[in-house]
Amino acid sequence: MPDRPTASPKTGAAGPSHQMWGGRFAAGPAAALDQLNRSLPVDHRLWPQDVSAARAWVGALGLAGVLDAEEVKLLAGGLERATERLAAGAAQDAPDEDVHTLVERLLYEAVGPVAGKLNTGRSRNDQVATDLRLWTRDTLAELDAGIAALGQALCAQAADGVDLLLPGYTHGQRAQPVRWGYVLLAHAWPLTRDRARLAQAADRLSELPLGSGAVAGSGIPVDRERLARELGFARVAPNALDATGDRDFVAECLFGLTLLATHVSRLAGELATYASAEFGFIRLADEFCTGSSLLPQKRNPDVLELARAKAARTLADLVGLLGTLKGLPAGYSKDLQEDKTYLFDAVDTMAVVLPAVRGAVATLRPVPERMRAALDPSLLATDLADGLVLRGVPFREAHGLVGRLVKAAEELGAPVSAVPGVRAAAIHPAIPDLLASLGDWEASVERRATAGGSSREAVGRQLRELQVLFGRPAAPVT
Amino acid sequence: MPDRPTASPKTGAAGPSHQMWGGRFAAGPAAALDQLNRSLPVDHRLWPQDVSAARAWVGALGLAGVLDAEEVKLLAGGLERATERLAAGAAQDAPDEDVHTLVERLLYEAVGPVAGKLNTGRSRNDQVATDLRLWTRDTLAELDAGIAALGQALCAQAADGVDLLLPGYTHGQRAQPVRWGYVLLAHAWPLTRDRARLAQAADRLSELPLGSGAVAGSGIPVDRERLARELGFARVAPNALDATGDRDFVAECLFGLTLLATHVSRLAGELATYASAEFGFIRLADEFCTGSSLLPQKRNPDVLELARAKAARTLADLVGLLGTLKGLPAGYSKDLQEDKTYLFDAVDTMAVVLPAVRGAVATLRPVPERMRAALDPSLLATDLADGLVLRGVPFREAHGLVGRLVKAAEELGAPVSAVPGVRAAAIHPAIPDLLASLGDWEASVERRATAGGSSREAVGRQLRELQVLFGRPAAPVT
Amino acid sequence: MPDRPTASPKTGAAGPSHQMWGGRFAAGPAAALDQLNRSLPVDHRLWPQDVSAARAWVGALGLAGVLDAEEVKLLAGGLERATERLAAGAAQDAPDEDVHTLVERLLYEAVGPVAGKLNTGRSRNDQVATDLRLWTRDTLAELDAGIAALGQALCAQAADGVDLLLPGYTHGQRAQPVRWGYVLLAHAWPLTRDRARLAQAADRLSELPLGSGAVAGSGIPVDRERLARELGFARVAPNALDATGDRDFVAECLFGLTLLATHVSRLAGELATYASAEFGFIRLADEFCTGSSLLPQKRNPDVLELARAKAARTLADLVGLLGTLKGLPAGYSKDLQEDKTYLFDAVDTMAVVLPAVRGAVATLRPVPERMRAALDPSLLATDLADGLVLRGVPFREAHGLVGRLVKAAEELGAPVSAVPGVRAAAIHPAIPDLLASLGDWEASVERRATAGGSSREAVGRQLRELQVLFGRPAAPVT
Amino acid sequence: MPDRPTASPKTGAAGPSHQMWGGRFAAGPAAALDQLNRSLPVDHRLWPQDVSAARAWVGALGLAGVLDAEEVKLLAGGLERATERLAAGAAQDAPDEDVHTLVERLLYEAVGPVAGKLNTGRSRNDQVATDLRLWTRDTLAELDAGIAALGQALCAQAADGVDLLLPGYTHGQRAQPVRWGYVLLAHAWPLTRDRARLAQAADRLSELPLGSGAVAGSGIPVDRERLARELGFARVAPNALDATGDRDFVAECLFGLTLLATHVSRLAGELATYASAEFGFIRLADEFCTGSSLLPQKRNPDVLELARAKAARTLADLVGLLGTLKGLPAGYSKDLQEDKTYLFDAVDTMAVVLPAVRGAVATLRPVPERMRAALDPSLLATDLADGLVLRGVPFREAHGLVGRLVKAAEELGAPVSAVPGVRAAAIHPAIPDLLASLGDWEASVERRATAGGSSREAVGRQLRELQVLFGRPAAPVT
Repeated sequence: MPDRPTASPKTGAAGPSHQMWGGRFAAGPAAALDQLNRSLPVDHRLWPQDVSAARAWVGALGLAGVLDAEEVKLLAGGLERATERLAAGAAQDAPDEDVHTLVERLLYEAVGPVAGKLNTGRSRNDQVATDLRLWTRDTLAELDAGIAALGQALCAQAADGVDLLLPGYTHGQRAQPVRWGYVLLAHAWPLTRDRARLAQAADRLSELPLGSGAVAGSGIPVDRERLARELGFARVAPNALDATGDRDFVAECLFGLTLLATHVSRLAGELATYASAEFGFIRLADEFCTGSSLLPQKRNPDVLELARAKAARTLADLVGLLGTLKGLPAGYSKDLQEDKTYLFDAVDTMAVVLPAVRGAVATLRPVPERMRAALDPSLLATDLADGLVLRGVPFREAHGLVGRLVKAAEELGAPVSAVPGVRAAAIHPAIPDLLASLGDWEASVERRATAGGSSREAVGRQLRELQVLFGRPAAPVT
Repeated sequence: MPDRPTASPKTGAAGPSHQMWGGRFAAGPAAALDQLNRSLPVDHRLWPQDVSAARAWVGALGLAGVLDAEEVKLLAGGLERATERLAAGAAQDAPDEDVHTLVERLLYEAVGPVAGKLNTGRSRNDQVATDLRLWTRDTLAELDAGIAALGQALCAQAADGVDLLLPGYTHGQRAQPVRWGYVLLAHAWPLTRDRARLAQAADRLSELPLGSGAVAGSGIPVDRERLARELGFARVAPNALDATGDRDFVAECLFGLTLLATHVSRLAGELATYASAEFGFIRLADEFCTGSSLLPQKRNPDVLELARAKAARTLADLVGLLGTLKGLPAGYSKDLQEDKTYLFDAVDTMAVVLPAVRGAVATLRPVPERMRAALDPSLLATDLADGLVLRGVPFREAHGLVGRLVKAAEELGAPVSAVPGVRAAAIHPAIPDLLASLGDWEASVERRATAGGSSREAVGRQLRELQVLFGRPAAPVT
Repeated sequence: MPDRPTASPKTGAAGPSHQMWGGRFAAGPAAALDQLNRSLPVDHRLWPQDVSAARAWVGALGLAGVLDAEEVKLLAGGLERATERLAAGAAQDAPDEDVHTLVERLLYEAVGPVAGKLNTGRSRNDQVATDLRLWTRDTLAELDAGIAALGQALCAQAADGVDLLLPGYTHGQRAQPVRWGYVLLAHAWPLTRDRARLAQAADRLSELPLGSGAVAGSGIPVDRERLARELGFARVAPNALDATGDRDFVAECLFGLTLLATHVSRLAGELATYASAEFGFIRLADEFCTGSSLLPQKRNPDVLELARAKAARTLADLVGLLGTLKGLPAGYSKDLQEDKTYLFDAVDTMAVVLPAVRGAVATLRPVPERMRAALDPSLLATDLADGLVLRGVPFREAHGLVGRLVKAAEELGAPVSAVPGVRAAAIHPAIPDLLASLGDWEASVERRATAGGSSREAVGRQLRELQVLFGRPAAPVT
Repeated sequence: MPDRPTASPKTGAAGPSHQMWGGRFAAGPAAALDQLNRSLPVDHRLWPQDVSAARAWVGALGLAGVLDAEEVKLLAGGLERATERLAAGAAQDAPDEDVHTLVERLLYEAVGPVAGKLNTGRSRNDQVATDLRLWTRDTLAELDAGIAALGQALCAQAADGVDLLLPGYTHGQRAQPVRWGYVLLAHAWPLTRDRARLAQAADRLSELPLGSGAVAGSGIPVDRERLARELGFARVAPNALDATGDRDFVAECLFGLTLLATHVSRLAGELATYASAEFGFIRLADEFCTGSSLLPQKRNPDVLELARAKAARTLADLVGLLGTLKGLPAGYSKDLQEDKTYLFDAVDTMAVVLPAVRGAVATLRPVPERMRAALDPSLLATDLADGLVLRGVPFREAHGLVGRLVKAAEELGAPVSAVPGVRAAAIHPAIPDLLASLGDWEASVERRATAGGSSREAVGRQLRELQVLFGRPAAPVT
């Protein structure tokens, strides 16, 4: 990435006063280390969470008697002013090592040396774990809305597409006639699983790390239950060594995002196929097509191609995190600093992909005549076989008989329905009658009337259920 | 792998009668295709599930009026005999294309042509999805017991290790004194998350695909709700196109296994470090060590190294599956056949890793004197800083003062407690007093008494909670 | 995988005599450790290499004076007999820990206690590195032939397809007319890069580890240069610690296989698209199609789908190995035992994929009329723009003008060539003339006559070059 | 990442004049598409390459007679001015879709409508492939220098460390005494392989795509051989469809970076272990340590931990790219736009890691007394066994005898050298004598005098060879 966050030419300006440590070092960190080590270009976006946690911690230190009322007030006010400066862009190009140092510096600039009392009994190890859990929790809520919106777009298209028939495909080959709405809903259901999975991840991550100190718990007797309630966590993390080294929640979130991206990739890939001249089942809206720099006639489905590709990017982020965690001991190792790069990248990716694909879905137009034209008579083969079964022919035998009919049709270069009666009857005497009574495509689709099938009624039931699901937040787990 | 399942020299013997299709082909599949295509060497282990689903399907066809009572009885009996042959090893080196074809052939050999009625209204697409969900469900239950057993071994060691003190590490460096039991429990808590995650995956996969047909639902009006109950599924899969192409449950299971493997890898890596001569904190039991072919004195922690490495293998399996799914349309594509290779490999891996690591944990012996010897006085630095804070010095300042003390000690080549009073007092007048009153390691550990900390009471509470959790199955989600 | 190699029920039978260590252990390794630790089910296929290396080592020990002439003869004869037994299947279900132990045991059974002299100055660390390099070297040569054979099949089809015109696609959309032979050759060129890359990997791995001992070099003064020549290595590994812990050659080979698999995946995916009813550009031979268990009319391109999917499997193997290596110190760690699982799996995968895809390519038939039918007039848009450019219109402007013509044609529902002259002239006065003089598709293709273009001459040149390249082994690097 | 490049709030300002297409669209691209589609935030750093290629193309169009001399001069001058603006920061926050559009716009602003002639016969498909190959070629040269510099730092430390003895480790356990210089060189050799591999990648990517057009070759008869020479490419890409869709060079470069990062990760992990208090073999310089925000005494090896972690990041980039390529047809698909994100990230990562690790290596100090203290007598076990072998005991038997001696020593809680003579002689009569004559550690190390071993002479030879290799650029392949 162009303005690679971990490398900042401005770093050189960072004086020792901007670091939380350094008392015992004869020399400042080398520039090369600093380039590698500084995380502010990545973690600065955690400042709202860092300030929230700081505010709660000040309160907890007050209740624990470490700060007096005056100091609590002073520090709370200072955090207020730091927040204003941060909201106005103070994190931009700041020289600090990381977001925690940045907030402490701004506090210092607001209230002077008493700022040095803020981090009593805290470590960056429990701070960053707290900040990132807060950020992830809020992000998952926004993401849930974005997934639901894509689901609603699919439902809206599906509602308009219940009457449109096209081939259903397996192995990329025409298999049986289905409804266009049914195909779209097959891509909507996975989104409901994504939402449930991410909601459970959000529930599981709701554990407060703050008060874990660096490795062994805090030496200050703060009331962690109260802290948890104040910051909106469901529980207190039960082991401080685990709490500071645990990045399961990042992995789980990345996995949820990757599976979501995979679903979107499958949808996008299928739509791209349907948008080709050869299929021609759908037409993307002009505002969701791009053109070619060389070929004036092109209408390229870039949005779908990029959405298809992004599943590899979220997978890459997941691999990066899991590859990092392997073999590390419990507790904090600096390797864990990489977690945010992966998480932010995957979240940002889906924050761009979801609206783009939702827009493409919402604005595409089906082309009913092309769909209908793709329904060739061989798609009735299963109906024929089923007809034979109902007349007592074992299915496996019926399957073979119809296979021979298809072969005969191919040799004639004609649809199965045009195989001469004599020849058809030679394969099985019931076939001519069955061919005559197969009815139209609609009849064929309606024969698949089991729950989950592609009949009008079965599709309608799915649609109503999904509209309800996408109309509300993912169910909380309680 | 040596006897690579996808390549079987016996394949050539497979005649057309062992395939579920072929009526329309002039020539049999080429040997090269067969080598690539045949899945029996991998999927044969699904035969119990395939038979269960077949049995339920026969009942459903009977209720739907497609089979008469006589046929139902005949087929049920035939499946009984097929089961006996399979239990006796009939799947071994069988020539069939896949497990479904194998079962159908055995049924045919038991009851003759009526066997051809078994697959009326079914497709291998919904069959394999059903079989694999059944298998995964049962596997997750076994796995849960295996994780709990490892958790119990950690708890047992932790219970014995509450009194043992050693350094807690961050960045691989000694940080603060902690209890050995506390360190072990930091590796036990992640297992509780693994179990919860896999239990939710098990719940989510409990959807019946059977009755979905190939792509569009079954043309036979079977009662899918009844089928679901009979096979122990919680719900009917709501869209047949989704149901036949969905492998989310495989991905979710693979992710759960990978995170579990990562936790075991972190535990194993940490124990391997402690088992080194330089740390010497633990000694593996003889029966969990291996020797060297060249170096007679070696006691190698192979079990830990292999356990550490296996997290890469489960991750590889996850990458393989997710890489396969990306960009595929809804519904069945042959690419999905790869799912079982990844899932079986990851499950088999953990089925070997968990008991081995459990055994290593259960039989290791801590070496208290080595642990104690590693507690050097600099580990009291935070206590010193906390002491200054309680005398009103802002933490950041106290941190700097103690840093200077540590540096002074280093220059003297002595522990901080041995810095002469004059020099210490020059850094801060309160330091000599504080140094005198720090007390022993036990006192230091007990100062970390917040919930989740390493004090005796906090560790005891964790231990009791975990013993309860590992004593019962992972909570079902209802 | 069903018969998972790492778990063998027969393991229990392994007595201490089958292990190369154990003198110092009170108890034998626990069964759980054995299940995890035993590598024979995976590494048994290295026996030919292990025997070759043993034979060379015996000679080297003789020259070093550690064995006398009698012993050399005895051991060489014993290895001969061991080879016979191994060739007859002695590795099958053997109880030994690994292939090295197996060979030593067979030697012992052949010659008695003098067998114990074989491994003087050797360690399994340098043995396994030597065996695996030998195996990989031979495997890469076989693989090279397999890739060349696929390349030849592509060339043969391309030679037949120079006259066939079809659309060339970008973004999955028709772009410009090209030759069918040209498309096929676009998939052949990447194979030449694969071969060059793997040949360089083969050259780079040609370093002898034998004589490195366990970690520090061998204590026996063997002549390693001579050993290298005897075993066909180009060089002696220059640092024994590096030589025993280096698995770069496995990673490089896995990467080469993954990129090869990716190329085959791209070819397979494109052919699968062309084999769909909607494109219909090619027809797979019956012997390379599979059918459906439910749908009698289906001709599924399973071979192409599986080949497409396998790129994820080789990628998984690569991720597994690289994930294993990360963070390990130099020298041998047991984690490295996993290397063979990944390498063998990837090699076996491509050993099945290459012939299957080669067969599918060799036997497919193009469908010229469907290709020709897909050439719609908008594909001449670039020619039109180029025509305007030759009349002095800046390209960017010409691009815009032709874009407007395309839009006009679309509004009329007609090809660009049917836009009325008045309307066309209103866009640019030269357009009607240009439209009249565009000529046929052949003329359009021939206009792309730069080197590497799709003109007949340019394609012919490529074809001749590739036929030469695929007719001989990948160039050795010297 | 915080300022995520693909999402720019300024995008809205992009008018149609900044896009290379758009003539046929009724509506502009939706903002959501634009967010996903715009690549300038990533690809802007290719502007020097884009300008170079443009300059060469102008010349080629002139020679082909498409531009007259005046136009050539005008455009060349315009590119000059565009370059000045770009060098002054014109790419920063520019509103254009991508770098090609940016350059064309600046050219337009410099010379007016004639700028529209620049892209005659070019497509962004061949442009971006050309730009990225140019960028990668130059980057690989810089990277080579960075790797060599790390290698030199290792050699310098190794030269100082030839006399220092410490245990060599296998399985994380002490195995045999070795030289510190020897250990460092074991990490230097892999870097020579990295350089050779990347040099071959650089050679292989030296093929000119320019002149390939969008898919079928250029319609303008430019002299591609001449273009290749001018831009410094060794060859002309032989098939335009392959040339526009090929990203092998990106994959190969990413793999080379990942293996390099893996080597650095192994080095960093090993150094981090040696920097622990328990090993204490090395001490990092103050300027390459970081401190703790809570623990005043900490000296954390963050640089090593981050370097260890980054191998997961480059692996992630590789997975992302390969996951993207799989299954794509030949030629350009928009998915390929993702290539730069992965490549830039991996290159930028190593550009920060290499100097940081080089600095850490150059400034670390070995602690000879700690190294020496870790040499415990059991490390002489192999020497003992070798001694028995030289007295005619078969190695396997000698191994067992020494194992018994080690066990006896352990039971006594004493070193092997302190086992009473009677007891030692009971194991084998020659042992007491051998124990007496083993000599010191230096003697033991010198016994490993085979090529590649840890004797002084063998290490010296390696060192001289490496100093030469790291003193010059990686050998070009010709």
